[in-house]
Amino acid sequence: TLQHIFKEIFKASLELQEDDHRKALLVSRKRQPENTVFDINGETIGRSGTQTFIAGPCAVESYEQVAEVAKAVKKQGLKLLRGGAFKPRTSPYDFQGLGEEGLKILKKVADEYDLAVISEIVNPADIEKAVDYIDVIQIGARNMQNFELLKAAGSVDKPVLLKRGLSATIQEFINAAEYIVSRGNNRVILCERGIRTYEKATRNTLDITSVPILKQETHLPVFVDVTHSTGRRDLLLPAAKAGLAIGADGIMVEVHPDPAVALSDSAQQLDINQFNKFMDEIKNSGLYNKTDKTSPSTI
Amino acid sequence: TLQHIFKEIFKASLELQEDDHRKALLVSRKRQPENTVFDINGETIGRSGTQTFIAGPCAVESYEQVAEVAKAVKKQGLKLLRGGAFKPRTSPYDFQGLGEEGLKILKKVADEYDLAVISEIVNPADIEKAVDYIDVIQIGARNMQNFELLKAAGSVDKPVLLKRGLSATIQEFINAAEYIVSRGNNRVILCERGIRTYEKATRNTLDITSVPILKQETHLPVFVDVTHSTGRRDLLLPAAKAGLAIGADGIMVEVHPDPAVALSDSAQQLDINQFNKFMDEIKNSGLYNKTDKTSPSTI
Amino acid sequence: TLQHIFKEIFKASLELQEDDHRKALLVSRKRQPENTVFDINGETIGRSGTQTFIAGPCAVESYEQVAEVAKAVKKQGLKLLRGGAFKPRTSPYDFQGLGEEGLKILKKVADEYDLAVISEIVNPADIEKAVDYIDVIQIGARNMQNFELLKAAGSVDKPVLLKRGLSATIQEFINAAEYIVSRGNNRVILCERGIRTYEKATRNTLDITSVPILKQETHLPVFVDVTHSTGRRDLLLPAAKAGLAIGADGIMVEVHPDPAVALSDSAQQLDINQFNKFMDEIKNSGLYNKTDKTSPSTI
Amino acid sequence: TLQHIFKEIFKASLELQEDDHRKALLVSRKRQPENTVFDINGETIGRSGTQTFIAGPCAVESYEQVAEVAKAVKKQGLKLLRGGAFKPRTSPYDFQGLGEEGLKILKKVADEYDLAVISEIVNPADIEKAVDYIDVIQIGARNMQNFELLKAAGSVDKPVLLKRGLSATIQEFINAAEYIVSRGNNRVILCERGIRTYEKATRNTLDITSVPILKQETHLPVFVDVTHSTGRRDLLLPAAKAGLAIGADGIMVEVHPDPAVALSDSAQQLDINQFNKFMDEIKNSGLYNKTDKTSPSTI
Repeated sequence: TLQHIFKEIFKASLELQEDDHRKALLVSRKRQPENTVFDINGETIGRSGTQTFIAGPCAVESYEQVAEVAKAVKKQGLKLLRGGAFKPRTSPYDFQGLGEEGLKILKKVADEYDLAVISEIVNPADIEKAVDYIDVIQIGARNMQNFELLKAAGSVDKPVLLKRGLSATIQEFINAAEYIVSRGNNRVILCERGIRTYEKATRNTLDITSVPILKQETHLPVFVDVTHSTGRRDLLLPAAKAGLAIGADGIMVEVHPDPAVALSDSAQQLDINQFNKFMDEIKNSGLYNKTDKTSPSTI
Repeated sequence: TLQHIFKEIFKASLELQEDDHRKALLVSRKRQPENTVFDINGETIGRSGTQTFIAGPCAVESYEQVAEVAKAVKKQGLKLLRGGAFKPRTSPYDFQGLGEEGLKILKKVADEYDLAVISEIVNPADIEKAVDYIDVIQIGARNMQNFELLKAAGSVDKPVLLKRGLSATIQEFINAAEYIVSRGNNRVILCERGIRTYEKATRNTLDITSVPILKQETHLPVFVDVTHSTGRRDLLLPAAKAGLAIGADGIMVEVHPDPAVALSDSAQQLDINQFNKFMDEIKNSGLYNKTDKTSPSTI
Repeated sequence: TLQHIFKEIFKASLELQEDDHRKALLVSRKRQPENTVFDINGETIGRSGTQTFIAGPCAVESYEQVAEVAKAVKKQGLKLLRGGAFKPRTSPYDFQGLGEEGLKILKKVADEYDLAVISEIVNPADIEKAVDYIDVIQIGARNMQNFELLKAAGSVDKPVLLKRGLSATIQEFINAAEYIVSRGNNRVILCERGIRTYEKATRNTLDITSVPILKQETHLPVFVDVTHSTGRRDLLLPAAKAGLAIGADGIMVEVHPDPAVALSDSAQQLDINQFNKFMDEIKNSGLYNKTDKTSPSTI
Repeated sequence: TLQHIFKEIFKASLELQEDDHRKALLVSRKRQPENTVFDINGETIGRSGTQTFIAGPCAVESYEQVAEVAKAVKKQGLKLLRGGAFKPRTSPYDFQGLGEEGLKILKKVADEYDLAVISEIVNPADIEKAVDYIDVIQIGARNMQNFELLKAAGSVDKPVLLKRGLSATIQEFINAAEYIVSRGNNRVILCERGIRTYEKATRNTLDITSVPILKQETHLPVFVDVTHSTGRRDLLLPAAKAGLAIGADGIMVEVHPDPAVALSDSAQQLDINQFNKFMDEIKNSGLYNKTDKTSPSTI
């Protein structure tokens, strides 16, 4: 029938149009088929077959605390240390981080242990200052659609790790990355960190298939934050294995010298011993730096 | 049994403790039993038995557009006009608003029609400047946990309308308000605007019972944004009626002279005629400025 | 451009097609513009401007318990009594209801107080038997897509109250009703009872705008179960007001002589005094049997 | 302080109590520390280090269709064939399956190819009859809390594959399994199949960490249905890898000789060639029948 013919014609034109739109985004794999690959402190990010681990405490509490974790991170052969200086907390009366003092501690430890540091920035006005101290700017989940912050992060020459919002769709996540890249900064890492669902057995629900979808739709590196997605120490290792198996370019995990006294996230950080076991099991799993992530969707 | 006794003792102490915690929040009704009531341009906000309507276009597009809506708003006897100058949009390529130019238009129209204006601010650095132009600062859903913005809004002497985050819990919403009030600004309006759920028949799911919960837990005025919670023109009136019936202190609704050509949210704004019908039906419903909201939970 | 022309042509044909599909459903208002109205024990269900209350205990526990509630229900001038004989419970070790014995109690009480009774049936094999005891068959939320049960309920000559599934979309809900109606039984009441979301301040999230949507899409009566949607005694009255204001044809609420010792749902049932106050406030609200529900979407 | 002491005492007693409760469930690993292991047609299910694949069409359409898939399944060295005879469909006008005729086809093909067959049963009254035709009874997601069906499945001597409900919590899922086991049938497979969330890039959201949680909480085998959790052909392989890496005991995937003409789920089934590639990649991944699943939570 006539209607059917129109339908088919239109379908084709619609797909064409949608393709155009996706191709138009700077982050789109349609626009740039090859992976975005860059270097942070000698660690290659985003290259097929190479995975990166980022470890460190939830919050910077003191020089000693950060240094102790840095030592362990270094010993495991890793090169990226995380630590929060500005902490976005649900309540105004919870520990809000050490601020610039925290950034200074991170810088000092990073220099001493030859590590790159990643830390969250929460105010557009702090971005300029932060680049003197840190190697990767983290944009947290609560700020994924803080577009002013995204624009500021897009205007500096520093890699950005962008976390998925608490209940952001994958399309919103990709568009948030586009805000950064469209300002000229194309070194963006996408980080899945779990989404908010009805299920409360875990802090969030790790949306594991977002990893291959993001790899297909964009050319950016994709990481999995196993700490915030699960919120449970006992699930960090299984979640990391799943992340590596499904093609993630890296894993982020929280480590604290003494989680029981941590000023935030005490229930979900690994202590140094647990971290060493965690890395050992990862290395023994056959999943680390061995998988070929070029073809998540060959079928 | 012994365990049972401990249980009962502990239950009592737990409840005591939880009560203490809630009482501790400045926004808590335990701390201030009477409603927070304040005045905006002669309109009383938050008084039991009085409801307020806020109407206006999604985005400020031109002086003529805003003035046309202002005229209709005025004619309906309303006193609060809304309009977006800074528009947080999912894509960086969508219309981002007229910025400060938009604020100037709002100010001009407000002066001419003797209306108060409400507009969203998205950058902490713009708060100071904005207070010269507008009467109520709106913090949007995407920025509900942009704590730097909340702190900035808490530091000025201007009422704030705080929208609930896309998937914020009621407790997170209350804590976000506490960020503002704890900085010294206690004129905060809480605005339910729907939450993100699996159901896609509406743009969001209007969490109508959040209204009586927020009225119980806090002493702040609670509004319902019927436009963003439903995303459907045909549901604005029923949603507004439900909001008034359940005890909301006010309703926010988007109105545009010609929604079909609106630069944003075209599918969900009322045109002037529809707005007039909407207000007429509200006035005829027996729900407007007649219900006693003092006792949402007398049972 | 050519593409644009095709787009417009196709849009029109698509809408036509979608219309056709919806019109095809027996429950669709496109197919039958006027409300489905029927009578249960002298109570008219579904007529514009008339609302019905269904009250009763969560579970039938004894003749005395049911009789005491029936007396109160009767005294309030209501005609429909609910009570669960077969209780679908999360754990196999929780009270599963009195079964057929419970149906007999309901029948006895109904006869004595001249009330109609509504009770949930959970096994297709029990439907035939149940029609001897009860006046309305309830299909519970967990069984909304138990299609064998729907088919069985569609094959008898008895009104059916169909609850929305825990996380059913509105379209799935409508299709579930279609299963019943397509078997020849067109006396179906749709009952919104809250959906499962991330928010845990309430047991479920009452999707209040589903009421006008269901009224638009179908010609069936739409009720709101305020007990299961909120799970909180203090929200029953506000939720019922919102339900009536938005156009519901009826409200269902749980009442128990002594909720503290109830075998199920003790935290959310009203006692007799509370029920009397609840009904008094409803009657004084101006929302009961006065609103005109013909035009939920006149705009 | 006194309150603190009570708190500590109570905490201990609470944990004790919770432990008791979980230990009390027959499916609990606290009650039976070792895995439940059983044999289906020579295939061992649930043994640490062994994984099982179940493949087959969504719906049984004809003898030829099933036989063609069976041949491919056999060739890949697999032993379990799936196929739906009773199809629970959203609309009553969609293909409802061949019913008993479908079971007969499955039985015939199973005999000819020496495979075990798994098929969904939807009516308690059909369970008895079904055991003559099939080797594993599937309880579908929509029936996870159809307790009458669970009880019936618990009363026969046949393994049961129980799918997680559309929006079931992990605790509800475990309790549903307990319904079966408490009736005497302890050969139950738990099958994660994705949960309903706001994200629509996938049909459901695969809750991958439910696998290690279910392995910890129960002693039952845990499978992942990659077809229904993703609803996308391009995600089947990545999801299967993640499932194996995180410790699943098996993977279920839909295969159809010609998905484009399938009577249901056409967008998400593999054709025979794709299935062969899928299995080849799985076998080459190093994840199949090699991982040690005994210690998902050694940290």
